[in-house]
Amino acid sequence: MMSGLLRRSHSECEPMGVNDGRISDETELIQTYLAPLAAPGAFNLSDDAALIETIDGVDFVATNDPVIAGVHFFADDDPRDIAWKALAVNISDLVAKGADPHSYTMALAFPDAPERRWMEAFSRGLAEAQAAFGCRLMGGDTDRTLGPLSISITALGSLPRGAFVRRQTARIGDHVFVSGTIGDSALGLALRHGGRDVIENLSTSEQAFLRDRYLRPRPRIGLVPILRRYATAALDVSDGLLKDARRLADGAGGGLAIHQAAVPLSAAAKAAVLAEPTFLGLLATGGDDYEVMFSAAPSDCQNVIAACASADVRVTDIGIIQPGTGVSLVTRDGAIMRPSKTGYDHFGG
Amino acid sequence: MMSGLLRRSHSECEPMGVNDGRISDETELIQTYLAPLAAPGAFNLSDDAALIETIDGVDFVATNDPVIAGVHFFADDDPRDIAWKALAVNISDLVAKGADPHSYTMALAFPDAPERRWMEAFSRGLAEAQAAFGCRLMGGDTDRTLGPLSISITALGSLPRGAFVRRQTARIGDHVFVSGTIGDSALGLALRHGGRDVIENLSTSEQAFLRDRYLRPRPRIGLVPILRRYATAALDVSDGLLKDARRLADGAGGGLAIHQAAVPLSAAAKAAVLAEPTFLGLLATGGDDYEVMFSAAPSDCQNVIAACASADVRVTDIGIIQPGTGVSLVTRDGAIMRPSKTGYDHFGG
Repeated sequence: MMSGLLRRSHSECEPMGVNDGRISDETELIQTYLAPLAAPGAFNLSDDAALIETIDGVDFVATNDPVIAGVHFFADDDPRDIAWKALAVNISDLVAKGADPHSYTMALAFPDAPERRWMEAFSRGLAEAQAAFGCRLMGGDTDRTLGPLSISITALGSLPRGAFVRRQTARIGDHVFVSGTIGDSALGLALRHGGRDVIENLSTSEQAFLRDRYLRPRPRIGLVPILRRYATAALDVSDGLLKDARRLADGAGGGLAIHQAAVPLSAAAKAAVLAEPTFLGLLATGGDDYEVMFSAAPSDCQNVIAACASADVRVTDIGIIQPGTGVSLVTRDGAIMRPSKTGYDHFGG
Repeated sequence: MMSGLLRRSHSECEPMGVNDGRISDETELIQTYLAPLAAPGAFNLSDDAALIETIDGVDFVATNDPVIAGVHFFADDDPRDIAWKALAVNISDLVAKGADPHSYTMALAFPDAPERRWMEAFSRGLAEAQAAFGCRLMGGDTDRTLGPLSISITALGSLPRGAFVRRQTARIGDHVFVSGTIGDSALGLALRHGGRDVIENLSTSEQAFLRDRYLRPRPRIGLVPILRRYATAALDVSDGLLKDARRLADGAGGGLAIHQAAVPLSAAAKAAVLAEPTFLGLLATGGDDYEVMFSAAPSDCQNVIAACASADVRVTDIGIIQPGTGVSLVTRDGAIMRPSKTGYDHFGG
């Protein structure tokens, strides 16, 4: 199933290097770096497909969220972090649906044959992510491309029949919860881009925290049983708090006003907003949070909070879905930030 | 689950065109062109993941075989054919494992926002392929890329528990069968490249046949129940007859001598070999055949042949796995073609 690295382009890309630390042999790439990551049904990546044995009464969930160098990560990021993020963004979708991570396929497209040390670090990052998330590689494909490095993962999760948590099934009156803290990743990306004094004046440890939040999303796997039991709807926060809240509220046919005080911020993000209040917009719309947003009936809220405390997962009640449409962010001084159709830079009174 | 088209590159690729026939809105792309292809559990592509409902006693098979413009197809091929091939190469892997096609995810990466008429033809090609193969879209992702168009499909198939047909489980003494005809696709690609007089002297209808074989692989779905019942091992012929035969024979710890007369050739391929005997090498090693190769015990061969006749699938017995190693092709004049380690252009006595 893993195959194809040596396939030549019609337009004849450069031949792979040999003896310069690059991997010139697809068997080496697959057997040395990827086969140790394989699931039992993947037959050591030596077949054309993987067997997924089912358990009676257990359904699957599938998601596919690829990452491309220059779009979702930087080509010179640490390969361990690239690998972690490529898998984590998919696991985040599974978790939000109430599914336990099960397995994944991975298509790697390389602009050049990868260096051994790059591939070693990449496979180590995958191994770390697999161990953290509880899933294994089923197979996939390796190719040369004239474009940037891309990693297309399709992940499968499993859940008891009937336990799938949809995005569009919230109801008016439900409370909306969000896990972890919001906006750290957007600040980490801004740091990576450089040139923002306010962020660069943060302490070294705060900066390190924000960078890590950008590079290593941590899907809230501890929420899975809680979502199955209590969530009326859920999705992962990947496109920004406001945009994803709008999706949840739209499903209920309602709207949501989120008060600034209710948005869970890390100490680093709080420091940034204190220094520059307009950063709140970046935090609420920047995306790449990979936290879970879910709704629950008012009668279940106490149980949700207790269950999350037991599972040691931070969740915050950010508001109640009301009749009406749209999502707004109410700042401390009473200004209302309302996402425009094309973006989130529009502040209104 | 389908999302991301409008995500900007870190390195700021050009903004999408508007009002020039290109699709500037990811909602339009997904809802107009892709949602009509969705499986029931994909909720009209409006959720972050798809639900795959299982049936007790039924296992799944997963495969991931991406295609990239300039490597696996030409960027200016008809989008209907590109779509068909992108799905067909994955279904081919499922069929060879004895699985019924079930569903698939698809990650599309576009160098530019696609034109409406391109996307319309692409989705029509997918719809044709889905209908032919019996599977539906579960979801996926759309992105901009600085590289060429790429389509990464992960396909799922289903089969009765225990029916998975492995690649490496053939036995010495088994007969090896191959479906359809071999080498047509390699000739079709050679035609596409141009400059080969021998092929260009073929009749117009023969040329059209070869081009179609390159553009539109037809997975042998009719073989699925026969493989489950009789195959001791199987794989799809995608990397060339000899290379894939070697994989099958290696699994048995044996070898295989294939006589030229036993290689199933179409009328067009026969005409090409008649005009230029060395073309046989191209046919046997060119790949992209997407036929099924499988082994069966001698006592089952009559039943295999009868079952294939009933299912109206052409299969040819190409030889018996013998003690020893390696695969060779014995030409009519007694010369032996033996794949070298790095390629298949080496003829020996």
